[in-house]
Amino acid sequence: MTTIDLNSDLGESYGRYHLGNDDQVIPLISSANIACGFHAGDPDVMYQTVSMAEKAGVGVGAHPGFPDLDGFGRRKMDLSPDAVTHMVTYQIAALAGFTKTHRLHHVKAHGALYNAAGKDLTLATAICKGIKAEDPHLLVYALSNSALVTAANNLGLPVAQEVFADRNYQADGSLVPRSQPNAVLHDPDAIAKRTISMIKTQSVVAVTGETVPIKVDSICVHGDNGAALEIVKHLTQALKQEGIAIKTR
Amino acid sequence: MTTIDLNSDLGESYGRYHLGNDDQVIPLISSANIACGFHAGDPDVMYQTVSMAEKAGVGVGAHPGFPDLDGFGRRKMDLSPDAVTHMVTYQIAALAGFTKTHRLHHVKAHGALYNAAGKDLTLATAICKGIKAEDPHLLVYALSNSALVTAANNLGLPVAQEVFADRNYQADGSLVPRSQPNAVLHDPDAIAKRTISMIKTQSVVAVTGETVPIKVDSICVHGDNGAALEIVKHLTQALKQEGIAIKTR
Amino acid sequence: MTTIDLNSDLGESYGRYHLGNDDQVIPLISSANIACGFHAGDPDVMYQTVSMAEKAGVGVGAHPGFPDLDGFGRRKMDLSPDAVTHMVTYQIAALAGFTKTHRLHHVKAHGALYNAAGKDLTLATAICKGIKAEDPHLLVYALSNSALVTAANNLGLPVAQEVFADRNYQADGSLVPRSQPNAVLHDPDAIAKRTISMIKTQSVVAVTGETVPIKVDSICVHGDNGAALEIVKHLTQALKQEGIAIKTR
Amino acid sequence: MTTIDLNSDLGESYGRYHLGNDDQVIPLISSANIACGFHAGDPDVMYQTVSMAEKAGVGVGAHPGFPDLDGFGRRKMDLSPDAVTHMVTYQIAALAGFTKTHRLHHVKAHGALYNAAGKDLTLATAICKGIKAEDPHLLVYALSNSALVTAANNLGLPVAQEVFADRNYQADGSLVPRSQPNAVLHDPDAIAKRTISMIKTQSVVAVTGETVPIKVDSICVHGDNGAALEIVKHLTQALKQEGIAIKTR
Repeated sequence: MTTIDLNSDLGESYGRYHLGNDDQVIPLISSANIACGFHAGDPDVMYQTVSMAEKAGVGVGAHPGFPDLDGFGRRKMDLSPDAVTHMVTYQIAALAGFTKTHRLHHVKAHGALYNAAGKDLTLATAICKGIKAEDPHLLVYALSNSALVTAANNLGLPVAQEVFADRNYQADGSLVPRSQPNAVLHDPDAIAKRTISMIKTQSVVAVTGETVPIKVDSICVHGDNGAALEIVKHLTQALKQEGIAIKTR
Repeated sequence: MTTIDLNSDLGESYGRYHLGNDDQVIPLISSANIACGFHAGDPDVMYQTVSMAEKAGVGVGAHPGFPDLDGFGRRKMDLSPDAVTHMVTYQIAALAGFTKTHRLHHVKAHGALYNAAGKDLTLATAICKGIKAEDPHLLVYALSNSALVTAANNLGLPVAQEVFADRNYQADGSLVPRSQPNAVLHDPDAIAKRTISMIKTQSVVAVTGETVPIKVDSICVHGDNGAALEIVKHLTQALKQEGIAIKTR
Repeated sequence: MTTIDLNSDLGESYGRYHLGNDDQVIPLISSANIACGFHAGDPDVMYQTVSMAEKAGVGVGAHPGFPDLDGFGRRKMDLSPDAVTHMVTYQIAALAGFTKTHRLHHVKAHGALYNAAGKDLTLATAICKGIKAEDPHLLVYALSNSALVTAANNLGLPVAQEVFADRNYQADGSLVPRSQPNAVLHDPDAIAKRTISMIKTQSVVAVTGETVPIKVDSICVHGDNGAALEIVKHLTQALKQEGIAIKTR
Repeated sequence: MTTIDLNSDLGESYGRYHLGNDDQVIPLISSANIACGFHAGDPDVMYQTVSMAEKAGVGVGAHPGFPDLDGFGRRKMDLSPDAVTHMVTYQIAALAGFTKTHRLHHVKAHGALYNAAGKDLTLATAICKGIKAEDPHLLVYALSNSALVTAANNLGLPVAQEVFADRNYQADGSLVPRSQPNAVLHDPDAIAKRTISMIKTQSVVAVTGETVPIKVDSICVHGDNGAALEIVKHLTQALKQEGIAIKTR
């Protein structure tokens, strides 16, 4: 039976500030990327989110980001490679402290850190060194075909290449930037169909028409607003009808 | 042969800000209390300090504090017990991520957190719950005879009761507050003699003359300025002459 | 014609985190207490909130709090009086920078800082010194009959004594603590009637039946959720019917 | 009589962390660039540094930086132009709150913000908008010939073009990057002679031999260590002998 992993960013609340629909998203996915207190999340939120994810049997992963709460980790910061390595270890280890086993399932970098690591091998390597220092068995989530895949391979870390259910692709396999009008897909049905096609063919059709080969180990979905939640629900039903089980790797 | 543990607060630098003489203090002590990024320390400093301590064979411990860098963790904050528990787990786990074994030797609360936990059993229990969540074998450093000793005992955590080499005591076993003129001892020779006496007799003479029974599992020393460093050097020599070995528990 | 000031806490969003219904509350009130970046708010939010308040002709005030974003300024911190004075000046001056005239209308301390200043004259004085350093004409909002009123009077600062539309009072004029079941009123009609009575009689009936004299210069209202917003709307209509104009002092 | 302005970065301590020799530097200079709490400084330090500078009759200026205490404002952050504008206004206004007149003499951007603004006109304009919002008479300190000079001119803000006493220049008028071995000058005598030559000729000889015209309104000096302090002392004596008075613009 074909299986696919669905992952989503969770635990992004902070103190008095509530964000996301974690309780509704968790039952729909197989892997949770949980913020670690640098770009979002705080120790209370981390404890609660890990508890929810563990109860649901979802893969618990760390979601480290730049130390920039005001920018939600979406603003690139020019940190030295060593500073990146150490801040990644710090965040991963802190999150692992809230799990029952003190072992995580995976690590997915957040926001500007993730985006920059897709193109910058030095940065990607710094991230992977920080992951390896915590645990060399941690699965590294990375954009399909990106520098982060290369860095993880170089260091012998296992990799899950992921695609985005609701984002358009360019001919070189990169995402259409959010600054362009056709960056994001909105139609739940079209998203579900294209996702199933990506899983079956391990390829995606770029906005310019080319068929681009991609490795699809995991699908990233969002659930932080009502429309996003509808998209995920529709996708999970479509996968079920197609006989594709949602299962962590 | 009699042995005694010497512990000291380390890793309190932050970014561009340098504090302490960690490289000179580490060879003199047996247990390092390393700041975890909330009241002092950052991921780079934590990495470097753990590395130094491990190379020297010193017991690596976490030194969690209130989330108050500007106040250096010395200003009490009214956190809920759950918030204390989770922030303690977070800080301990983060530090453990920088060790080779991912296991720490001990935990010692810092500054206002330590002081308040000495008298407030609810707070002390919240700290110990946070420690136990990370690792129930972690040695809890606590002021001799304090509420933190009680809390650790209640939760079944091992305890190291500590005394302060350079602080005067009151008849009830508590420290003379820093607001009073005779709070701190300055003469290296007097400090060494009194410390050895505390180890041998498991008691201390209060400023008001009473002999107060205390349990002396560890001696806390400071090394963040030249005078403090001289006191530690003098003490270690005096212990050696007395045939008391400096050794972590 | 009788007039009354309505004040409300605004500008409490932060980065990606949205809080409150500022655009709906501002048209209903006469004075805005705007967060200054320590317990909530950031420079972008401050700019936007000041702009909205100025356009609406509302009195623009600073709402300084403890430096504790994770606790939303609701956790008491033991700062020295000088530290309080300087952090208050800092926050007020920063907010004033976003106004057209660089002059504010008033200052209202936030959360744990406000609550503690109601009972602690040393703290209240430290706050008032910080206000006076910025501008000795700033109106100090203070809980009726509290230590903050005394401190402002002592330093010659003008004071607006405020009452809370939706909170019950004790016989000594203090608020029923939120830990008690009858702390908060919920019925919009009862709230409006009691508020009008407080304005007309300059007194309030305590939960234990006593009539307590209070000075009612301003009414504090909340608008951070739908029910709160309904209460404010109902109150403003009731005041209008009563011929009481809503007007800043 | 020829006069020249000497400016220096001050007020960079933070809480328990002490940095610099402000009390020794202030008597030697004419303009103080005081950190505003984002990359360094806190409200207590700002108050004390402003007080010292005012007593000495030195021009009090703001030294705004990126919100990155751990990186000391030396790591570039990709902020939106609006975010830059607002964070600059916030920092400037906060510092002005500690002065007697609530008016500053100048603004000098710090670290990575200053460096990036030298080459990026959009960023430089965003900074200048933030300055203008606080006070359109504020003198903008800028690297001679840089984009920040252009931006300030465009917005009608007065500019002081500055040179660095201890840094080598390239043929295009930019500084030799610190990554290159000859970036920094160390010999106090050579530094003094070259500085006097720059003032008299309004030009500097690049490391590659070319004579580069520069406008020398102010000299930036450092005093955060003993050697730097010696350089400043030597320079001020040399200027005196040359009949050049140290005076703020």
